[in-house]
Amino acid sequence: MSKKTVILISREYGSGGRALGEKLAAVLNIPFYDREIILASCKESGYNMSLFEKADKQSKHPITFFLSMYSSSVSPYDLSLNDQVFLIQSKVIREMAKESCVIIGRCADYILRDDPDILRIFVHAPIEDRIIRVKEEYHDEDSDTEEKIKRIDKNRATYYNYYSNEKWGRLSNYDLSFNTSKIAIDTCVKMISHYIQN
Amino acid sequence: MSKKTVILISREYGSGGRALGEKLAAVLNIPFYDREIILASCKESGYNMSLFEKADKQSKHPITFFLSMYSSSVSPYDLSLNDQVFLIQSKVIREMAKESCVIIGRCADYILRDDPDILRIFVHAPIEDRIIRVKEEYHDEDSDTEEKIKRIDKNRATYYNYYSNEKWGRLSNYDLSFNTSKIAIDTCVKMISHYIQN
Repeated sequence: MSKKTVILISREYGSGGRALGEKLAAVLNIPFYDREIILASCKESGYNMSLFEKADKQSKHPITFFLSMYSSSVSPYDLSLNDQVFLIQSKVIREMAKESCVIIGRCADYILRDDPDILRIFVHAPIEDRIIRVKEEYHDEDSDTEEKIKRIDKNRATYYNYYSNEKWGRLSNYDLSFNTSKIAIDTCVKMISHYIQN
Repeated sequence: MSKKTVILISREYGSGGRALGEKLAAVLNIPFYDREIILASCKESGYNMSLFEKADKQSKHPITFFLSMYSSSVSPYDLSLNDQVFLIQSKVIREMAKESCVIIGRCADYILRDDPDILRIFVHAPIEDRIIRVKEEYHDEDSDTEEKIKRIDKNRATYYNYYSNEKWGRLSNYDLSFNTSKIAIDTCVKMISHYIQN
């Protein structure tokens, strides 16, 4: 890869988006960031790991948050803890995106929206196939796998929609999308590699 | 190509979806159907060409139409002319899809939803780039190109949503999507060819 490309993957839970990102990063020989963002955010902030993990991804004070983005009159310490977590993660993501890499989720496509070198990808699949994948991959024996998938996707959408003021999974927000029930993950990786390397 | 693949392209007006389809059909050496569907429908029905061209793509009698799909008690002649046009086009599209081909628009992804050999693609681009493309490609000198694009897209959505009871441009309805402002049409063609030929 000669030119910098930051590949941002949003994905429905159980669609294989994370696996796709890992394989792509390996093929392109560039860093892969998922939980690494949380680790780096802890280091950056000094906050406890559990704070980042437990953040319920919905702030209680949207007005305060948006004021802080556009005005210097609001101190970061006036923000809810979740909003502070978002700002810290944003800083970490911007730092990571100075070089080619693959980043999973975390609103990165919105955070990096002014970077011309991003490629925004959405990975999805029908719910019935995602149930099978989740049961196999995570050895999920629960009978309520479908409910769990829907809850996780709802959390992702809420988080994304809240911070970006956009809509998670809206086609126009992505440069590429793949239905992994139709197109195998290894084929997706080859198709994306073709774009990056040509 | 050994295995049959019917490539169905839905597209925002001015995104280059038609050009993509033409190039793809040429590369794969398979038929390309766009206006050819109208011509074949005229031949099939004996109706005048202008009827197919002028159909305003919104039927007045949805209940009658849906009854006719699921009940033999409604004769096709009870239907509005637009609904008859849709049924004739559906028959023509099913005939075309017996062999590998590229089909543009016309609700074909819904009409062929039970065919396991379809690949559903959506092609889009930001409105500002589509305005430039439409002005260049169609030598459109009007000042209201943006309005025209929005009107055509609205017609496409209305037609699709009405007949499929689904939502045009909803990400989950497509196996692949491309933003042609980010990914050049020739690259899209290569990426899709890679999928088809491997």
